[in-house]
Amino acid sequence: MKRFTLQTSTRNEMLDILADVQDALDSLLSDAEGASGAALVYCPHTTAAITVNENYDPDVKVDMLAKLSREIPKEDGYHHAEGNSDSHLKSSLVGTSELVPVENGRIALGRWQGLLFCEFDGPRQREVWVSFLRS
Amino acid sequence: MKRFTLQTSTRNEMLDILADVQDALDSLLSDAEGASGAALVYCPHTTAAITVNENYDPDVKVDMLAKLSREIPKEDGYHHAEGNSDSHLKSSLVGTSELVPVENGRIALGRWQGLLFCEFDGPRQREVWVSFLRS
Amino acid sequence: MKRFTLQTSTRNEMLDILADVQDALDSLLSDAEGASGAALVYCPHTTAAITVNENYDPDVKVDMLAKLSREIPKEDGYHHAEGNSDSHLKSSLVGTSELVPVENGRIALGRWQGLLFCEFDGPRQREVWVSFLRS
Repeated sequence: MKRFTLQTSTRNEMLDILADVQDALDSLLSDAEGASGAALVYCPHTTAAITVNENYDPDVKVDMLAKLSREIPKEDGYHHAEGNSDSHLKSSLVGTSELVPVENGRIALGRWQGLLFCEFDGPRQREVWVSFLRS
Repeated sequence: MKRFTLQTSTRNEMLDILADVQDALDSLLSDAEGASGAALVYCPHTTAAITVNENYDPDVKVDMLAKLSREIPKEDGYHHAEGNSDSHLKSSLVGTSELVPVENGRIALGRWQGLLFCEFDGPRQREVWVSFLRS
Repeated sequence: MKRFTLQTSTRNEMLDILADVQDALDSLLSDAEGASGAALVYCPHTTAAITVNENYDPDVKVDMLAKLSREIPKEDGYHHAEGNSDSHLKSSLVGTSELVPVENGRIALGRWQGLLFCEFDGPRQREVWVSFLRS
């Protein structure tokens, strides 16, 4: 497993991490030319998530984050004293990890897909863990 | 990795793809009798998703799609000019892929489970990518 | 693959299953000391789910379950005669499985993360299926 860190800058944010994940994968693969399988991109935090979605028009990320926050607002009669139950729920709904195909050592995404770290309780320093699984 | 295509027929739809995924898996496995691990069923699109859910009573799919569209309607003050931010958000919430167990070369699901391609911005021609990961 | 059962006690509930999943993984790994990769934790039911989230303050689970039920109530004009379409939708949104990293035979989670079975239509006896995938 390979770990890297990133710094988020606001409470709710989606950051493209594809290049960082590919770098982590490269360092895991000695036989990079031929390796095929999948990369597990794992978020070890409970108020953030990983997703795959459009990374071309930035308005898509803006719209998704805004709609999520309208449906799951920060204040909603929660009990958790830390005041971030909204962040925990967003994390479980979007999901803690993504598993993406790897062909010949390269992460294979669809044409419009980006690999996005979702911050739901920032700004914070965060980690991403990358594992390679063999076909 | 093995790819196959499917054609969806309406804007929101769930289609059973288990037989197609098993066919793709068969073509990946030369040692089908003994192979165990998991199959990654991956959607390379940003306005569709993959899920596992009931495929017995068709009303379950009807209810899930209708409720999703009531909570995440097509028009909701979005900025994205293409007019399908609802589809992108549904995709990230339901999820881009499923990883399902494989035993002796066969996909192993629970008794009532089906493997469903979720169209959220159809009708379109779509692809599904299948990878096998070894135990 | 290794299966284990659990008994839930109410309609909506999140139960920590990390120790059970580690036990299942131990029984799958003969070379436990060295095995690295990932564990697929799979729910073979269509009205339950698996998630990774905080398992420290129990209020987080209470808040997540209550908010989910406010947004996706049991009665909401559904057609499915069995009366649990809410449970099916929660299952697809939270997700049927989690894939978690394994290092040296041990499941590796973030500091505050727990591995949670989510019951959305209990009480019932449920199964969890665990597979190990190699790096």
